[in-house]
Amino acid sequence: MAKTVALFLFVYVAGIVAGHGEYRGKETVSVTATLGMPWPMPQQYSSTQDLFTINRNAFKFRATGQSCDILESAFFRYQTIIFGLREEVLKFHPKLRAGTLTELDVNVKNKCDRYPYLGMDESYNLTIAASGAILNSNSVWGALRGIETFSQLVLQQSTDMFSVNGTTVVDYPRFQHRGLLLDTSRHFLDVTIIKQNLLAMSQSKFNVFHWHIVDDQSFPYTSNNFPDMSKMGGYDSRHIYTQDQIAEIIEYARILGIRVVPEFDSPGHSQSWGKSIKDLLTKCYSGSKPNGQYGPIDPSLESSYGFLAKFFAEIGKVFPDHYVHLGGDEVNFDCWKSNPNITAFMKQKNFGTDYAKLEEYYVQRLLDIVSGVNKGYMIWQEVVDNNAKVSPDTIVEVWKNQYQLELSKVTWRGFKTLLSSCWYLSDISYGIDWPKYYTCDPHEFIGTAEQKKLVIGGETCMWGEYVDNTNVISRTWPRASVVAERLWSAQSVKDATAAAPRLEEHRCRMIKRGFPAESVNGPGYCPQEYSIPV
Amino acid sequence: MAKTVALFLFVYVAGIVAGHGEYRGKETVSVTATLGMPWPMPQQYSSTQDLFTINRNAFKFRATGQSCDILESAFFRYQTIIFGLREEVLKFHPKLRAGTLTELDVNVKNKCDRYPYLGMDESYNLTIAASGAILNSNSVWGALRGIETFSQLVLQQSTDMFSVNGTTVVDYPRFQHRGLLLDTSRHFLDVTIIKQNLLAMSQSKFNVFHWHIVDDQSFPYTSNNFPDMSKMGGYDSRHIYTQDQIAEIIEYARILGIRVVPEFDSPGHSQSWGKSIKDLLTKCYSGSKPNGQYGPIDPSLESSYGFLAKFFAEIGKVFPDHYVHLGGDEVNFDCWKSNPNITAFMKQKNFGTDYAKLEEYYVQRLLDIVSGVNKGYMIWQEVVDNNAKVSPDTIVEVWKNQYQLELSKVTWRGFKTLLSSCWYLSDISYGIDWPKYYTCDPHEFIGTAEQKKLVIGGETCMWGEYVDNTNVISRTWPRASVVAERLWSAQSVKDATAAAPRLEEHRCRMIKRGFPAESVNGPGYCPQEYSIPV
Repeated sequence: MAKTVALFLFVYVAGIVAGHGEYRGKETVSVTATLGMPWPMPQQYSSTQDLFTINRNAFKFRATGQSCDILESAFFRYQTIIFGLREEVLKFHPKLRAGTLTELDVNVKNKCDRYPYLGMDESYNLTIAASGAILNSNSVWGALRGIETFSQLVLQQSTDMFSVNGTTVVDYPRFQHRGLLLDTSRHFLDVTIIKQNLLAMSQSKFNVFHWHIVDDQSFPYTSNNFPDMSKMGGYDSRHIYTQDQIAEIIEYARILGIRVVPEFDSPGHSQSWGKSIKDLLTKCYSGSKPNGQYGPIDPSLESSYGFLAKFFAEIGKVFPDHYVHLGGDEVNFDCWKSNPNITAFMKQKNFGTDYAKLEEYYVQRLLDIVSGVNKGYMIWQEVVDNNAKVSPDTIVEVWKNQYQLELSKVTWRGFKTLLSSCWYLSDISYGIDWPKYYTCDPHEFIGTAEQKKLVIGGETCMWGEYVDNTNVISRTWPRASVVAERLWSAQSVKDATAAAPRLEEHRCRMIKRGFPAESVNGPGYCPQEYSIPV
Repeated sequence: MAKTVALFLFVYVAGIVAGHGEYRGKETVSVTATLGMPWPMPQQYSSTQDLFTINRNAFKFRATGQSCDILESAFFRYQTIIFGLREEVLKFHPKLRAGTLTELDVNVKNKCDRYPYLGMDESYNLTIAASGAILNSNSVWGALRGIETFSQLVLQQSTDMFSVNGTTVVDYPRFQHRGLLLDTSRHFLDVTIIKQNLLAMSQSKFNVFHWHIVDDQSFPYTSNNFPDMSKMGGYDSRHIYTQDQIAEIIEYARILGIRVVPEFDSPGHSQSWGKSIKDLLTKCYSGSKPNGQYGPIDPSLESSYGFLAKFFAEIGKVFPDHYVHLGGDEVNFDCWKSNPNITAFMKQKNFGTDYAKLEEYYVQRLLDIVSGVNKGYMIWQEVVDNNAKVSPDTIVEVWKNQYQLELSKVTWRGFKTLLSSCWYLSDISYGIDWPKYYTCDPHEFIGTAEQKKLVIGGETCMWGEYVDNTNVISRTWPRASVVAERLWSAQSVKDATAAAPRLEEHRCRMIKRGFPAESVNGPGYCPQEYSIPV
């Protein structure tokens, strides 16, 4: 396992070549994990040689400021995460012993919020010194992030004895929106898997679960007002989420400081909606007759908007977050063009043959409906690419190629923006692929300081075509953590070679915590490997 | 989920394009699984509309011919595999009921062998009719293959009631060597994972576990004669296989009719050997001084052969199979060239500057040593590419590109050959990649009938650089099953579009049986999904 980090760059370049002959000679080198280094890297981090020992039977978290269910459950959770694990004897034997640590004082200044929200204060300060271990934060959200950092600094020395170095951390996120998308339409994911993924997210300081819950393929959302949508649009009765399960997921995320932003994509990507909602989708024509195919939602019928009003009124109540993702990507105009009623509608509205105008008309009415239930909205970039007029507080998600140009355009027009183009985890390839995610930066585009400010973060996407319960966790982690660091840490933290040993530790830490986080740095091992129940 | 198979070809072409925009519009189509179709496809297979019901409480396997521990444990295993699963109600309700089935008579003609071997008779006939269900085979190995086929024909109708159609199967493998390689050097794999993989192999009729047990990175094999090899060459004391664990794996494979062929690769890929065996590896020189680097095993020292004789005498005893894989790939001559003692040795042997002659000399002596302990050997193609004289019964494994040319060459020279070039499962890519494995055929090269006969099969390889306990099963299955069908079924069974629905059923069947077999056909679902323990 011994290698110099300098060799690493060479390894991941070499590693990308396929075929064992082409590379098998090269991987005697691997990455040696750090010990007790945090991921993502805090804004300011320094540690000393002072080593404090912790007896797990004597240690406790203590709330010295505001507290609430969120903080209490964090205390309980991290007792297990830090101390409840199998023994791992450290490789080094520290000389200096600066004393023992018996508690972490967590001092939250402001009263707890009930739910996390866009722009919540996640900053915190952490000090571990002879004078004690103190975590200060304005909000409970900052305390959550800080306790996670603390947990990553503590190392196990023997069954009961742990240790942590003297440390000073001043920390806050670079971006306020740090999201991960899972797709439960192409393949269904068990509630257990979604919760496991949320827990993993919290340990990399993600704060938004973008739940791409429905799409063309299936409609697993069980609606109160329209129960037939999942009955007829879901794969089957075992592949749907009940209202109780959705509430369970939202509550689990809340306790972890993670927002749940559901996506109900329209007018395209809505084939599964049409299975139960009569006349919702556009009938496609061949010549003068409907051909049995259906297109996007029919924007020419008032009934469509009646349905949407009732549907999104429900969504507004079910999902507490202020934002809903309304999709709006990949609207294919062919079916609209084929339909005589649409043609007549276009004429009546004086849209000529500009179907982008028709899309804009639909989007406009949808956005009004959603604003009407006091929700903000996120959309995929096409909506503004097609020049639909949207309200200024719309958040535009950039996902296509040439994203730097798009970021310039969208922010120039004054919209808040999220980047996901360069963070498609579903797009796998052979070898060490994480540096390409690590080196993509949302601020690397041509624009003014004001434009840069409009980039509020980004999202990494694991689309569901080829992942389900069997592989979604191992394929997502720790690759998603790479994006988490880009979104949390300082812009200057961008050297993949320097990050590799820390990522290696982070991956092994995730395995120690029970996640099947896959190997990302080539040959090597973890002190404790993932094991399956026999 | 409804789709016509005709659409499928389009889907997997479309599916390979990356980026959600480029493909998200296209995957409303997926593959609809077959019901009760076997994988791999038998040589002759026909079924009737006659439907026999089976009450799980009334059914039993009965040995009407020879029996032994192998057959008894198969009876026990398949009672659970077929009947011990959660309920799945069938989607179709058969009209015809031709009666009930209360037993499968398994009639093995010849006394059981203790261990499976190259060329064992795996043929069997299976008949399910009003007259009863009978499985005939010459050997117990054929019975194992036939019982697996039977288990795949049985479908569950309700908690206790199962059904099977009238069926006639005449079956035997197209190739006698059907292998899967796992690499436990780049990443260690738990015994539990290796056993789970062996069980999966048996359900796709693989019959050889090629255990690439050691390599440059680590030496997890615990040697009786040289215990320091794993002590110093293993990653650490938790990443080695004890003799008891190796025996456990061999026994588990035996019961499943799977041969265990260990690979001890030399003279290259042996860096981990050198950590404990003094002077085994060639000292590399810079100018007139050793530079601290080591190359392949030093062929100029008698001590090397003394070690190899003692080491392979042990291997010959530990592994019951007649064959050992001796590697021989990717020998880098640079270090040999730099070493003055080697230069002197070359001179003394009149090898001139032809280091291939030196390699041949080493290989010759190694092969003599291994023959001396009555073992046959497999080698990677380079050994014969470099024109080393090897004994005529050597099995040459072709793994490099341009494999068709290589197959022609190697068989022309009269060697038995295995193909693995086109079956590297470790070389992943986005989308539906299995058709490229499915359409590769070991007989598609220019050669005489005699040459074709020399191709005794092939192996699919999951190299260990990027897989470990966390993802090796999900990444290997069901992709490896695609190769299993190519190696078992008739050459004419090669239409990926036609195979897709059967592969879809096979994948869901594996999930039902507890394997995290990943999605390979794009969006869709299984009646029972894989679930992780909470």
